[in-house]
Amino acid sequence: MTTIQDIADKLGITKGTVSKALNGAPDISETLQKQVLETAVEMGYTRLRRYKNTAKKLCVLVQKDNIQYEEPHHFAYDIVMGFRQMAEPAGYLVDVVPIDMNLQRRLSYDVFMLQNNYAVSFILGLSLNDPWMHDFQTSHTPAVLYDNQILSNSSIAYVGVDNSEGMDLAVAHLKKMGHRKIGYLSGALGSHILQVRHRAFFQAMHHNGIDVDSSYAGSSYYLTVCMEKHLPRLLDMGCTAVICSQDTIANAALMQCEQLGYSVPNDVSIIGFDDLPICPYTSPPLTTIRQDRTEIGKCAYYAASSLMSGISIGTVLLHAQLMVRNSTAPPLNSKSRQAL
Amino acid sequence: MTTIQDIADKLGITKGTVSKALNGAPDISETLQKQVLETAVEMGYTRLRRYKNTAKKLCVLVQKDNIQYEEPHHFAYDIVMGFRQMAEPAGYLVDVVPIDMNLQRRLSYDVFMLQNNYAVSFILGLSLNDPWMHDFQTSHTPAVLYDNQILSNSSIAYVGVDNSEGMDLAVAHLKKMGHRKIGYLSGALGSHILQVRHRAFFQAMHHNGIDVDSSYAGSSYYLTVCMEKHLPRLLDMGCTAVICSQDTIANAALMQCEQLGYSVPNDVSIIGFDDLPICPYTSPPLTTIRQDRTEIGKCAYYAASSLMSGISIGTVLLHAQLMVRNSTAPPLNSKSRQAL
Repeated sequence: MTTIQDIADKLGITKGTVSKALNGAPDISETLQKQVLETAVEMGYTRLRRYKNTAKKLCVLVQKDNIQYEEPHHFAYDIVMGFRQMAEPAGYLVDVVPIDMNLQRRLSYDVFMLQNNYAVSFILGLSLNDPWMHDFQTSHTPAVLYDNQILSNSSIAYVGVDNSEGMDLAVAHLKKMGHRKIGYLSGALGSHILQVRHRAFFQAMHHNGIDVDSSYAGSSYYLTVCMEKHLPRLLDMGCTAVICSQDTIANAALMQCEQLGYSVPNDVSIIGFDDLPICPYTSPPLTTIRQDRTEIGKCAYYAASSLMSGISIGTVLLHAQLMVRNSTAPPLNSKSRQAL
Repeated sequence: MTTIQDIADKLGITKGTVSKALNGAPDISETLQKQVLETAVEMGYTRLRRYKNTAKKLCVLVQKDNIQYEEPHHFAYDIVMGFRQMAEPAGYLVDVVPIDMNLQRRLSYDVFMLQNNYAVSFILGLSLNDPWMHDFQTSHTPAVLYDNQILSNSSIAYVGVDNSEGMDLAVAHLKKMGHRKIGYLSGALGSHILQVRHRAFFQAMHHNGIDVDSSYAGSSYYLTVCMEKHLPRLLDMGCTAVICSQDTIANAALMQCEQLGYSVPNDVSIIGFDDLPICPYTSPPLTTIRQDRTEIGKCAYYAASSLMSGISIGTVLLHAQLMVRNSTAPPLNSKSRQAL
């Protein structure tokens, strides 16, 4: 079990300082207090609960068939941590609960929340055909959904990255380097977020003055279909750059391009989306759109606490950020390339 | 000057309870504390400042040429109040400062903020040609903009109502009553928010399966052009319903329809946007899309405090709400009308 000494050791400060910070002593700076509290949550220091407002319990619900969170390298780990780093110091108990389709079929969302005495939930990984997505049309218990949007229910908020901004950054980056024929490769459009990114790609192209028809996009539930059908088709059409809906697809595209005899970024530029921990280590390192997952979790807490105060927040979007690495370069026939 | 007794009288509780609530005593419920603090701010109780973290000053900046806030019936009054009701109990000093074009030309945004030692601003009423809108492309001091969006600057957040959701509610309401020919009347498209609503109207029509060309929308900086040119044109085209970009335009349309010999809602339905205090008192009372202005102010505080914590929130949208009053009804030739 984590002790105050463990936290002190990790931060290189005294036990007394940690204790003061945990108790909100006025002679400890706000910055240090925040750092100590966040580290305490991260290290699993459970004594914090002594100071908690046990009247209100919050939960993070993770659709375990779609998203992983248990280990630091899992996609949702930092999202869950960011949420807890805000909620626990504010005095809430946070339960992290895996859910699946069966649970959702057995209990309605409102009943589940009531049975467990949760005031609000933060829910990750629901696809459009998860049963609770239907419940949310009329449910009463506040919920914050990661990457899913329910219109017209004032108890439900949507938290995510600004996909339009992200796609705009990706397209503008490629355009600036001289690319004009840009394709888009996506997973199945059966999730809200991939529908949004798909639309955002075409909007971003339009904003940047490059109008393309639907043949410039390819999507499939199967990664192999994306790699063996759509990617070769985009390359045959003369695309000098391909934006992918997720880093996992972009990473596969890097390898598939090599298989097909295309060098990245010399023959074709590839851009991903998400900035997974793997991105700096792919070959070549992947240029991508970053969504800061810890911040997503913190935003979700803001949304949750505002729903609890009766403020009907609908959408909270984090700024997207372009991470330029080595998988993008000017196209071969461009002036900037010829000058090299 | 407001005293504790004044607050106690207003809420019908004892002076002792008010005092305890202001000091966060543990035997006062969270709900009551919140109510006392919000009332104290609303009544101008200044002693609260004794408990304040004077290290951080926030400001609400109002472009006074475009928006009014001084009196309770002014559009921005509740927005400013909502922001203060969150920020002041949290320990911040809030200055409300009117700004104009001259000030913006004289000082850059960052310099203004630095000179006045403000940590973050909440800014209302900027149009696209206000000089600071250009500064925000590269400014460093956090700002929360009401109804204005700056992409790709992680220090700037956008707060407003979800206009897409609002237009969707308006169109779906009209469609359900049997309307198919629906027009849109807008102020000049020189502000971000009116551009967004204009686009949202066409998207909402598309979502609801009614595709219309651009002749179904009319916009002008001059209210008289909207009333004397665009509204008669939409009516001549056979529109049985008109959605307006703002309540002020809708209210003028109600009167103009009467002048033109059209009865509202018998001959034509009119829907506004904003839910200004006047809406229940127009003739007939106006069906409109509500943006809760106090909640907008509170959301803005959430965004501001998250920017101060280094979380790069980009967008916070409040749920829109349809307020059905008497300016909408089924069209004359519809089945639902014939059954009456």
